Amino acid sequence: MKLLEERIRKDGTVREGNVLKVDNFLNHQMDIELYKEMGQEWKRLFADKPINKILTIEASGIGMACVAAQYFNVPVVFAKKAQSINIEGEVYQTKIESFTHKRVYDVIVSKKFIGPDDHVLIIDDFLANGCALLGLINIVEQAGATVEGIGIAIEKGFQQGGKIIRDKGYDLKSLAIVESMDNGELKFRDE
Amino acid sequence: MKLLEERIRKDGTVREGNVLKVDNFLNHQMDIELYKEMGQEWKRLFADKPINKILTIEASGIGMACVAAQYFNVPVVFAKKAQSINIEGEVYQTKIESFTHKRVYDVIVSKKFIGPDDHVLIIDDFLANGCALLGLINIVEQAGATVEGIGIAIEKGFQQGGKIIRDKGYDLKSLAIVESMDNGELKFRDE
Repeated sequence: MKLLEERIRKDGTVREGNVLKVDNFLNHQMDIELYKEMGQEWKRLFADKPINKILTIEASGIGMACVAAQYFNVPVVFAKKAQSINIEGEVYQTKIESFTHKRVYDVIVSKKFIGPDDHVLIIDDFLANGCALLGLINIVEQAGATVEGIGIAIEKGFQQGGKIIRDKGYDLKSLAIVESMDNGELKFRDE
Repeated sequence: MKLLEERIRKDGTVREGNVLKVDNFLNHQMDIELYKEMGQEWKRLFADKPINKILTIEASGIGMACVAAQYFNVPVVFAKKAQSINIEGEVYQTKIESFTHKRVYDVIVSKKFIGPDDHVLIIDDFLANGCALLGLINIVEQAGATVEGIGIAIEKGFQQGGKIIRDKGYDLKSLAIVESMDNGELKFRDE
C-alpha cells in the first residue's frame, strides 16, 4: 500500500536494533484518516472472504481493527494480556513472548466471543517474529473457528514471522513489508 | 443516550461488588455500529469546542476513541500503562490506581504528542472513582494543554468520580449514568 509506505518513509524513524518507530501516526498517536484508508484496503484484499468477526490484541491493534471493522460490518474482539478479574467463565488462553517488552504474556479471549461458526480476520499493527500472531491463530483454532485472513499494517520482511505464517497456508496480507532498514535506509518489498 | 442505556439493559449484567459487565458489546467484544452512534453523540455534545486531539487510555478506551475521532477529524493519542522500551525521550507520567485490577499503574504519554497548543477531548469507557480520569487530566495539564471536555460511555453515578470531576469545573458528559444497580436492577440518571 503506497500510502502507508510513503508515510513510513516520511514519519517513521529507524533505531538501533532494527526498531522502526512509527509512534507519531500508528501506535501511540494514531492518524485516523490513515486508519480509514488501511481499513478500506483490507476490505478490498479480503473482499471474497465470509468474515463475521475481527480479532486483534491490545493495545496497538485495537484502534485500526475498530476503524477497519466499519468496512466489514462486523464486531471486533480484542485479546487481553494477563488475567483480569472482570473476565468471568472460561477463556481461551495462550502465551505470547514479546521481544519489545522482554517478557511472556498470558493472552486470553472469553469463550463467549469466538466459536466454531466464526470466520475470523486477524488484524495487528506489526509482524516481526510472528509470536503474537501465532498466539492469536492458536486462540481461533482452540475455538474451532476459521482464520479467513490476517491483515497486518507493517511486516518486517527480514524477520521470520511472515514466512512461517505463509508457509502454514494462512492468507496473510501486510500493507507494507520492510525488506531491510540497514543504516537507516528503508527498502520495501514489492507485493 | 437512550440507545446505550437500552443496550446496557439488554446485554449488560450486574455482578456482585457493583460490577457491571458489558464485555459483549463495549470492552472485550466491541459493537462498532454502537461505537459510531456514541462517537456522533460526543460530537454533538462537544460541537462548540475547538478540539484538535483525543486522549484515551489503553486498552478499552482506544476503540471507541478511534471511531469517535472520525467525527472530529482529529488524531487520537492513547496513554500507555507501564514503561515500554519503545517509548523514547521524555514522557508525561502519572500513577493510576485500578480497583478492577487491584494495582497501581504508571501511565505515560510521550511529550511529542501533547503540548501547550492542544485542545484535548478525553474519552474513556468507564467512570467510577475517577482515578483513571484524574490521571489523564493530570497528563494534559502537565503538557500545558487545555481539557476541552471529557466523554465517558458509562458512569457509575453512585461512585464519587463524576462529582469530583464536575466539581473541579470540567465539562464531563457521560452517555449513560447508572444511578443504582441494587439487587441487579439498573436505574439510570435522567440527564
